[in-house]
Amino acid sequence: MKELHSLFYFLELAGTFAFAISGATAARKRNLDLFGICAIAFVVACGGGIIRDLCIGAIPPAGLTNWQYLVVAVTATGLTVGLFSVVERLNRPVLFFDAVGLSFFAVTGAQKALHYGYNGEVAMLLGITTAVGGGVIRDVMLNRVPLILEKEIYASAALIGALIVVSGDQLQWASEDWVSIIALSVCFTIRILALSFHWNLPTPGGNKTDADK
Amino acid sequence: MKELHSLFYFLELAGTFAFAISGATAARKRNLDLFGICAIAFVVACGGGIIRDLCIGAIPPAGLTNWQYLVVAVTATGLTVGLFSVVERLNRPVLFFDAVGLSFFAVTGAQKALHYGYNGEVAMLLGITTAVGGGVIRDVMLNRVPLILEKEIYASAALIGALIVVSGDQLQWASEDWVSIIALSVCFTIRILALSFHWNLPTPGGNKTDADK
Amino acid sequence: MKELHSLFYFLELAGTFAFAISGATAARKRNLDLFGICAIAFVVACGGGIIRDLCIGAIPPAGLTNWQYLVVAVTATGLTVGLFSVVERLNRPVLFFDAVGLSFFAVTGAQKALHYGYNGEVAMLLGITTAVGGGVIRDVMLNRVPLILEKEIYASAALIGALIVVSGDQLQWASEDWVSIIALSVCFTIRILALSFHWNLPTPGGNKTDADK
Repeated sequence: MKELHSLFYFLELAGTFAFAISGATAARKRNLDLFGICAIAFVVACGGGIIRDLCIGAIPPAGLTNWQYLVVAVTATGLTVGLFSVVERLNRPVLFFDAVGLSFFAVTGAQKALHYGYNGEVAMLLGITTAVGGGVIRDVMLNRVPLILEKEIYASAALIGALIVVSGDQLQWASEDWVSIIALSVCFTIRILALSFHWNLPTPGGNKTDADK
Repeated sequence: MKELHSLFYFLELAGTFAFAISGATAARKRNLDLFGICAIAFVVACGGGIIRDLCIGAIPPAGLTNWQYLVVAVTATGLTVGLFSVVERLNRPVLFFDAVGLSFFAVTGAQKALHYGYNGEVAMLLGITTAVGGGVIRDVMLNRVPLILEKEIYASAALIGALIVVSGDQLQWASEDWVSIIALSVCFTIRILALSFHWNLPTPGGNKTDADK
Repeated sequence: MKELHSLFYFLELAGTFAFAISGATAARKRNLDLFGICAIAFVVACGGGIIRDLCIGAIPPAGLTNWQYLVVAVTATGLTVGLFSVVERLNRPVLFFDAVGLSFFAVTGAQKALHYGYNGEVAMLLGITTAVGGGVIRDVMLNRVPLILEKEIYASAALIGALIVVSGDQLQWASEDWVSIIALSVCFTIRILALSFHWNLPTPGGNKTDADK
């Protein structure tokens, strides 16, 4: 139980860090000031989790009560701002970190909802929300249509990760730790493969053109 | 009591369906992918209700716990995507469905707040929120100024519907079922008339021009 | 205690009024209709406080239960619409009122979180949220990148105001009333000085150019 708790804790911090870096990078590219970068980093890192906690009645939301989340977000911001030339030269670091955070958050989000005693649907929906909520808020605040809704398989990977967690909880086909590890790996793999091979879901409305913007 | 409950249940499902179709149609026109269309449909259908439930402490929000809402949203998405040529050719179907959902949600939203024991102001504000919240989130996510804030009488119709519910609750001028039916009809009629005759509220800032964008 | 409560009450109403005017002015400039102006005014005035109340479990949020907030918001809307030529001619009235609201909300937001028994971090984060939340929602709804994230010291002033409140609570270096007054004055002064002398936080991504849009 203690080990499980440590695992959860590590996953959430790692996810926070990954998302904060992706948020800070996006905010920096839009030329926000230092506070703006920090705020977007924090919102991406904790936004999805805060919505999840409000929906399951975990008051006050974990993202607001624990200093470590704020420290992680500020650290990530510092790194992104201070070492931006390095971060920029890395090959698609934002997308990589984003995939890490996506997987971590989908799994921990679904698990937290189950731990609070809610049903599989709540867990699935809040797993997705935890995973993509921060990114959607980021895009809405930076004034663009959320990327995750038009490009490459993203939220669908979170959906699959959350579904694995829910199926593990209900069918008990493995211990919770193993279920977590499998769900994480599957979600992360799907996302990275989708990025590498440009997998997209069908867009029934036709291809996106600049004229639509 | 049982009958009333059935009526509520039907109203909420019908509203969900109507809003999901309006959301899916808007998302498809912006060329979102399948998941994006489904997500916008779900958010429009349940977004207002989720905000309402958070505000009245109905945890977890009904939109997240009941499979039927998700099924209705997915079905509406499927119909909109699969039969888009049909949906498109219908005369202003989006606007019609939107008016149906608007009326249903304004009434049920106000009633749920009253059932939880809150006062008339909360009921009125949350009736409007339930009715227009999903549409506002849709427009914010699709990166445009919410339509409801600049064109034709929309939220005002929801306001009147919610006010009728509140007055019925406080003055007891009719049974709750009759109040519901009257509030629904009035709200729907105002909205449809506003659409037909292009009724607008005054825009004190002058007419909207492209230059303002 | 009673006096303190009266002070709180006055601060919150004054902040509501100031924010409502700033919201109504911005909405009017975007040519929203009467309901849209009123809705934006209400959202700016109460949006931050509603998010705070949801996060600390103050259900239903104060912004929804008290008629006076709605009356203040509507009054502010009426003044802005009716006397717009006057409001417009005043020198930067929006910015002034915004600074007043910013200071009031940062202080009362942090204090309410502390009164509910939460720790300093929650109080600091929710002080900022109460202060800037409404403005962020306004900008997101009016479809622009939140001003506060790119221009002049704004949220940072709220951060300092909230930090003074938290330090006063934990170190007890003065009575709560004095702490409030000092926090208010410092936050307001910083904001006004930042406006007058165009103080900006560093923007690591370089200066904002139109090409970035």
